[in-house]
Amino acid sequence: MSAAAETSELLVTRDGGVVTLTLNRPGRRHALSLSLLEELEKAIAEIAKDRTARVVVLASSGNVYSSGHDLGEMRDRTGEEYERLFGTCSRVMQRIRKLPQPVIARVQGFATAAGCQLVAACDLAVASETAQFATPGVKIGLFCTTPMVPLVRNIAPKIAMEMLLTGQPISAQKALAAGLLNAVAPEDQLDAIIKQYTDSIVSSSPQVIALGKREFYLQKQMEESAAYDRAVMIMTQNAQMRDAQEGISAFLEKRKPQWGE
Amino acid sequence: MSAAAETSELLVTRDGGVVTLTLNRPGRRHALSLSLLEELEKAIAEIAKDRTARVVVLASSGNVYSSGHDLGEMRDRTGEEYERLFGTCSRVMQRIRKLPQPVIARVQGFATAAGCQLVAACDLAVASETAQFATPGVKIGLFCTTPMVPLVRNIAPKIAMEMLLTGQPISAQKALAAGLLNAVAPEDQLDAIIKQYTDSIVSSSPQVIALGKREFYLQKQMEESAAYDRAVMIMTQNAQMRDAQEGISAFLEKRKPQWGE
Amino acid sequence: MSAAAETSELLVTRDGGVVTLTLNRPGRRHALSLSLLEELEKAIAEIAKDRTARVVVLASSGNVYSSGHDLGEMRDRTGEEYERLFGTCSRVMQRIRKLPQPVIARVQGFATAAGCQLVAACDLAVASETAQFATPGVKIGLFCTTPMVPLVRNIAPKIAMEMLLTGQPISAQKALAAGLLNAVAPEDQLDAIIKQYTDSIVSSSPQVIALGKREFYLQKQMEESAAYDRAVMIMTQNAQMRDAQEGISAFLEKRKPQWGE
Repeated sequence: MSAAAETSELLVTRDGGVVTLTLNRPGRRHALSLSLLEELEKAIAEIAKDRTARVVVLASSGNVYSSGHDLGEMRDRTGEEYERLFGTCSRVMQRIRKLPQPVIARVQGFATAAGCQLVAACDLAVASETAQFATPGVKIGLFCTTPMVPLVRNIAPKIAMEMLLTGQPISAQKALAAGLLNAVAPEDQLDAIIKQYTDSIVSSSPQVIALGKREFYLQKQMEESAAYDRAVMIMTQNAQMRDAQEGISAFLEKRKPQWGE
Repeated sequence: MSAAAETSELLVTRDGGVVTLTLNRPGRRHALSLSLLEELEKAIAEIAKDRTARVVVLASSGNVYSSGHDLGEMRDRTGEEYERLFGTCSRVMQRIRKLPQPVIARVQGFATAAGCQLVAACDLAVASETAQFATPGVKIGLFCTTPMVPLVRNIAPKIAMEMLLTGQPISAQKALAAGLLNAVAPEDQLDAIIKQYTDSIVSSSPQVIALGKREFYLQKQMEESAAYDRAVMIMTQNAQMRDAQEGISAFLEKRKPQWGE
Repeated sequence: MSAAAETSELLVTRDGGVVTLTLNRPGRRHALSLSLLEELEKAIAEIAKDRTARVVVLASSGNVYSSGHDLGEMRDRTGEEYERLFGTCSRVMQRIRKLPQPVIARVQGFATAAGCQLVAACDLAVASETAQFATPGVKIGLFCTTPMVPLVRNIAPKIAMEMLLTGQPISAQKALAAGLLNAVAPEDQLDAIIKQYTDSIVSSSPQVIALGKREFYLQKQMEESAAYDRAVMIMTQNAQMRDAQEGISAFLEKRKPQWGE
């Protein structure tokens, strides 16, 4: 996370506990080349070990957030090459989910195919009023099969099916109503909204945030009564953690809590 | 369900087939103490056996619907005590789902943490325009892990994640759009709306309502083709029930049906 | 698919790659009699084998889209008869899902019970502003248990529960907001909207559309990491298909792709 990183396809910047990862292939519409995906994977692995990193913002620049896979890497490759590319991409998406720190997509422009998937895979997502979202693979004969994995887990199936079958983009407002986004605002207000989220997350116990994020995705996929059983066990453990006792005491004593690291 | 019950933490009232359970700890923001949870569990068990009870309204009073667990019971307890508290709470939520009679939350104020969970766990929910919903456990170091079990089964994951990670409340209108509520109205119209639901439910066959509610939660968690197989079996049984034959005949003969008990 | 078919309960018409199936029991509110269901099943089986059929529109006429099962067939039957009726109905719904070609519901009027199920079971659905949707079986003592299978997989559970417990209809606008529909328009614009969908689908590779539709329903029910594993395998296969290589090349060379059949 040094200045040297700034010449790469992924910019990594820090501001207190907030790590911002910025896609940096402006000449290629921020396409997710294999090398960019590998940089993302490496950056996420480093953040996972960094106890001072508390929340991640996944940003881009210009009028495209990310155009998805780099078509230059999609022609005339072997099965092994395709598998490596799609496998790396899916691994990155799942590592976002498994990262202890929450990840917020900051979407300032078009997010298409694997770029739209990246938004769906993040824990939270905020977009500019002019952002658009599409899964247009069908138009080039390559159905957005991996993007649809997180997409159908975020929005109603008929809206997802329409995006996938037609390739047509949806507006930020429609994406918000569908559940793909948490907030939509003029682009010059995006940072202020992101700051509200990051301030809130940074003010909470990192251990408790990590526990909550992990349990969220785990439980969502469980049968409801099994999810309840697990939740009772986790809540019981959580209540006995130092940070819970400190947080409850601070609340009852009307003072600011002092979290562990 | 006698007058004596009125001195307890849970008021139980009857009006025809409609049982209203009213949280009654106004001095404690209707917090779900262990004793209140145990009263709720007992009341639900009695309703389950009462063939004259046809629908349940879960109400509260003042500007708070329920603030969730009683923090006074959350400090310096043993693992066994926490497990008993969270286990009882989860059991109550699941018994609402398993109760043959539909349960409608009548939310007149703030519903937070396990109070928000209670709304999510009910079959239907109606709220005042000024009601708000939050899962703020993260702020006191105790993530709303059990509340999130029904929450993520009611609303889009990114909205649930935002509520859980930030603890910020959402308005009744946002909760309605997200699917957590069935209707929102000025507080003085809540009873009229609730009455439309209860009148409708009371006018239907109690056996058929019970069958439908049971199958709803069962099927929702099944793989789709297995759900279809089960639905065919259940519809076949239902069609042969006296109340179905009576209902179809009454409809074709343009008269009011006479349901069994 | 000849002119002779026009005397049946199901009209089958063709316009290029678009097959329109029109429910044709106007005197019976387009009720899904066993014979109509069997015609639908047969028509779907023929379309599945027809490589020139690219997309299906499921239409009706008058102010009712379909009133669901024919009540005249619901009284005083044996268990075997009910099972055959409901089993055929569920098979038709699942064959819509399994058909390689996308199916679009064109809803011009009331869609109730199994008629509402038909809309939920289609891949996409467009409705007139005056269309309404209901699952009113509870009112005649026969809970809409099979209709709820696709319904709860399309819309938020509390909205579905309200429809099922009360039998009250919801408007096209509410159905749109809930995710049951893709678009709502004045009836005289329905065909223009449908044409946008069908034109888009017909312009894509039929093999890729079929692959995408199949994977959509398969993956949606899988645990997320298993869905990612499968998606990587499918994307790798898809990328090596002739139509993907042709599509990518055509895009990079700024020409129209020539799909295989």
